[in-house]
Amino acid sequence: MSLAPEIWSNTRVRSTPFTSRIEAYGVGAYSVYNHMLLPLKFVSVEDDYWHLKEHVQLWDVSVQRQVEISGPDAARLVQLMTPRDLTKSRVGRCYYAPLVDARGGLINDPVILKLAEDRFWLSISDSDVALWAKGLAHGFGLSVEIFEPTVDPLAVQGPKAEQLMERVFGSAIADIKFFGFSHVDFGGHDFLVARTGWSKQGGFEIYVDRPDLAGSLWDALYEAGRDLEVRPGCPNLIERIEGGLISYGGDATIDDSPLQCRLEQYCHLDAEIDFVGREALRAERDHGVTRAISGLLIDAPSIPSVRDRWTVSIDGESVGDLRSAVRSPRYGRGVGLAMLDRDAWDIGTAVTVESPTGPIPATVASVPFTDPE
Amino acid sequence: MSLAPEIWSNTRVRSTPFTSRIEAYGVGAYSVYNHMLLPLKFVSVEDDYWHLKEHVQLWDVSVQRQVEISGPDAARLVQLMTPRDLTKSRVGRCYYAPLVDARGGLINDPVILKLAEDRFWLSISDSDVALWAKGLAHGFGLSVEIFEPTVDPLAVQGPKAEQLMERVFGSAIADIKFFGFSHVDFGGHDFLVARTGWSKQGGFEIYVDRPDLAGSLWDALYEAGRDLEVRPGCPNLIERIEGGLISYGGDATIDDSPLQCRLEQYCHLDAEIDFVGREALRAERDHGVTRAISGLLIDAPSIPSVRDRWTVSIDGESVGDLRSAVRSPRYGRGVGLAMLDRDAWDIGTAVTVESPTGPIPATVASVPFTDPE
Repeated sequence: MSLAPEIWSNTRVRSTPFTSRIEAYGVGAYSVYNHMLLPLKFVSVEDDYWHLKEHVQLWDVSVQRQVEISGPDAARLVQLMTPRDLTKSRVGRCYYAPLVDARGGLINDPVILKLAEDRFWLSISDSDVALWAKGLAHGFGLSVEIFEPTVDPLAVQGPKAEQLMERVFGSAIADIKFFGFSHVDFGGHDFLVARTGWSKQGGFEIYVDRPDLAGSLWDALYEAGRDLEVRPGCPNLIERIEGGLISYGGDATIDDSPLQCRLEQYCHLDAEIDFVGREALRAERDHGVTRAISGLLIDAPSIPSVRDRWTVSIDGESVGDLRSAVRSPRYGRGVGLAMLDRDAWDIGTAVTVESPTGPIPATVASVPFTDPE
Repeated sequence: MSLAPEIWSNTRVRSTPFTSRIEAYGVGAYSVYNHMLLPLKFVSVEDDYWHLKEHVQLWDVSVQRQVEISGPDAARLVQLMTPRDLTKSRVGRCYYAPLVDARGGLINDPVILKLAEDRFWLSISDSDVALWAKGLAHGFGLSVEIFEPTVDPLAVQGPKAEQLMERVFGSAIADIKFFGFSHVDFGGHDFLVARTGWSKQGGFEIYVDRPDLAGSLWDALYEAGRDLEVRPGCPNLIERIEGGLISYGGDATIDDSPLQCRLEQYCHLDAEIDFVGREALRAERDHGVTRAISGLLIDAPSIPSVRDRWTVSIDGESVGDLRSAVRSPRYGRGVGLAMLDRDAWDIGTAVTVESPTGPIPATVASVPFTDPE
């Protein structure tokens, strides 16, 4: 899973307003995401996992950059970018939405925050969505402004997240609904807070638009949470695979459609809306999806690092590829996400995973992974 | 300059067909560029620097992804994307070309390879140019195909590069002109080879479109170059700053124009061509450029790692910011690239660089940096 080489940050791979805090604590591993540092480990992936499921963590997810789209044609452009029907969307709500190109390929899977009828933030995964939006806007001659504001999200995740947030921001936190957002005061500034986050343990994301207050906000949460065993955390490889959260760029790319990513509930292909890729997605639906992201339970006590996709086969014939996997301490074996052909995707199907250390037997499982019996 | 934390690669941050070779040798540091691993150090940045200037190195620059644009409207779209006049461009030639948005902001600075009158590769720096191209194409309704082919460039750089290339590919290598490209046989496959590369030491880039041959190609070059002291290398921080090569994403972003990056020779603002951002760039030129990338000689024997931009000031007033810097062994002090206001950009101007370890005096210098007297 880990490489010996160092990683460097420079002005191209940016640090965040929280970098000094997590480096003082002792971050264990970094990745790069949207041209910025993303922590991936603190104590160990497994220790971080158990802690996340029991306590509360502060996550530096500044890498979730915002693409702000505003102006008279903003709602039209945002709708053009996603098959999710946003015609009844409301200000103050968040919408998970696949973005697709003309061929129906996935460009990104942001959470869209509707700030006003004519102003949106797309809280993006790892691709330069602003360039896609600018290209469309210019080509169609739309009246919009598109830019990346200075917003560095701080996630507070885990079962004690609400308790911690209330201590710092007051009881109004409890009123924020799942995938809703509101504003809270800290240091005399209104911060946008949403009940969202890239874990299944519950929690919030604070959209920090004042880098000068980021350190004191972090410290306030840290101090208020000492008896809750708060500590720095990050998106956790085990927890997110068990929860079936796909990682854009790894589990899915522009060569995969949202239907193949099992995001059909966010694809309103018959709605009276105009979006790029509608014909392609309708054709795929009508012909029948031929492959899809599926869960795998992998029968090995430890799992090598998945650096490249591994072929998945039945009787020596390829039926797809594994894109992420890790040892699950709950199962005592591997859990993984694979893109599997229709012939192979039924739950319970026996397959073989061609790992770099040799073939491993595996079984197709439902995602999110359920607790082992 | 370095951080203790590890970097991880996974299927989101891809390894390359050469990763096994450079890890076997012992790569010292990685960055991530275009969602892929980019080596940044082997022995040490300074040792790598001297070696590059004396011998020959193999660089895994797979991160220079190709955006292929083909079809009846390909030439029109490529021209739309850059202020460089490509009307007289020729098949078989490479063109360094800034790409700009409607506001004149730099989107990328690729080398464009004209493969045919209706087929181009944009060999890109660190941003998702394919999304910008797809957005424009869709909005304007252009008849083009846009995708990222499986091409992993391998650069052969340094004064002995031509000698090494001739040994492996034959004397036809010598006929390739600067910024020209041709095809050579290896393993029964035609590889595109250009006389280009991100150093000022001369050399070639091999566009490896057969990952299955990448390892044997690397090995053949390595074996043939033993007596030339060939070794793995990478873009070198010292050499590229001394040579004045800007790093997109670090030294320049979408908030900077190509005129501010001193790329006016690639901006044909009065040519009879249609490109996005023309009005903005013309207005900037007509009003006069107010800031520009400038060289700085920094009077300190060692230079802290530049992780965030440092303010550059005169008498306590900001006149710009430093974006890259490193100790130059030739100068025995720092060399850097800064975006400086017009008032401060004259060569010889005395400024102060506000480094995290305190202010350092510096002097504006011409780029490329000339040899110290």
